[in-house]
Amino acid sequence: MTITITAFERSPDGGRGLARDTRVRWALEEVGLPYEVRPVSFAAMKQPAHLALHPFGQIPTYEEGGLALFETGAIVFHIASRHEGLLPADADARARAITWMFAALNTVEPPILELVTARILEADKPWSRERLPLVEDRIRARLRPLSARLAKAGWLDGAFSAGDLMMVSVLLRLRASGLLDEFPDLAAYVARGEARPAYRRAFEAQWALNNGGSPSA
Amino acid sequence: MTITITAFERSPDGGRGLARDTRVRWALEEVGLPYEVRPVSFAAMKQPAHLALHPFGQIPTYEEGGLALFETGAIVFHIASRHEGLLPADADARARAITWMFAALNTVEPPILELVTARILEADKPWSRERLPLVEDRIRARLRPLSARLAKAGWLDGAFSAGDLMMVSVLLRLRASGLLDEFPDLAAYVARGEARPAYRRAFEAQWALNNGGSPSA
Ligand SMILES: N[C@@H](CCC(=O)N[C@@H](CS)C(=O)NCC(=O)O)C(=O)O
Ligand SMILES: N[C@@H](CCC(=O)N[C@@H](CS)C(=O)NCC(=O)O)C(=O)O
Repeated sequence: MTITITAFERSPDGGRGLARDTRVRWALEEVGLPYEVRPVSFAAMKQPAHLALHPFGQIPTYEEGGLALFETGAIVFHIASRHEGLLPADADARARAITWMFAALNTVEPPILELVTARILEADKPWSRERLPLVEDRIRARLRPLSARLAKAGWLDGAFSAGDLMMVSVLLRLRASGLLDEFPDLAAYVARGEARPAYRRAFEAQWALNNGGSPSA
Repeated sequence: MTITITAFERSPDGGRGLARDTRVRWALEEVGLPYEVRPVSFAAMKQPAHLALHPFGQIPTYEEGGLALFETGAIVFHIASRHEGLLPADADARARAITWMFAALNTVEPPILELVTARILEADKPWSRERLPLVEDRIRARLRPLSARLAKAGWLDGAFSAGDLMMVSVLLRLRASGLLDEFPDLAAYVARGEARPAYRRAFEAQWALNNGGSPSA
């Protein structure tokens, strides 16, 4: 059954791996599933055809036969729960890996989204300069315990899992802010994720869509 | 096997159902599982014993034999995937219900958390008054498509599921802001969730912990 995902026709980051289709591509590459990509424009994303797939008018979406999903977390979980490579077989370890997926998306990502909003949507506001350090401090409050945990281990709970895939994907958006480098254990963790062959393939595919070639070309 | 969850010893909302243990209690009540509650103080939450259960020093946590989990999303999913009542049996419908769990936690909740932060942590800042409407507009941008979807149906995807449990739990935090009432379909949806006997039992149990009695007493 063909898997089709959607991605930005032209990603705002120019294909540097920040758009969320990269997370789905990475999961598909980890388990070795082929997939097709349907690029959508910003205009098309808000049209009925796309809204039928994604009620919030965003990317990525995931289609597989009669099944249509949205939400990166749900798509990655769907892939992980049906194929080997992203979730441990042991039931308790599996529940803990899923815990880290939710921690990435509901505890670590929200303050990071606040920073993105502050930087993009509120950049021209009179409070922007004074408020940014407050937002950054709320991110640090999440990074500190995470860093403590990773100082002792390569991955969040033993072997690499969908929890790490999601946490690395959330954290790598912080690189440009300099916050990641304040926590060397986290910077090393993200680098470890990005060094995985499956991540490289995912990154290169989304880069090629935006740049018509591979990043090293 | 005894299930033990943690909750605020004294909830900042005085037991009006906003603390996240209510979400876990609700899930346990829906599937009919008994559980015990260990109240923790704000001070204890940041101590090593609790941090071993919850790296970010928060509630709720979930213990069942040798398994220890945190993150409401993961706990509710763990309960839902092992007991009947919160996830449909059909594989595709199940994947869609899980999609709504992630949508609640990663698409709808983040702007709501921003509002909480703006209201509590930045209330005394000079920009507070001027910035609040911007945050509220970002929430409305999520509520609008959600409301459109619920105008046609009682629940997000056919029967009540863990996706609705999570979405209702996320939305009910908006009631005090007045934003929920701007969308009558959403207000009715939340009321539908709160009217479920399992929700009532969950609410009353967390209320009793904070008030030493039932809300109607
Ligand atoms: N929680 C959603 C977020 C999806 C999301 O924010 N997608 C972005 C691209 S990374 C998007 O489509 N933005 C365009 C828009 O919101 O108009 C998920 O994890 O899938
Ligand atoms: N993403 C977490 C959030 C947990 C959370 O924010 N817990 C709050 C109570 S509702 C808390 O413990 N706050 C106290 C603190 O952060 O110090 C979850 O869904 O479990």
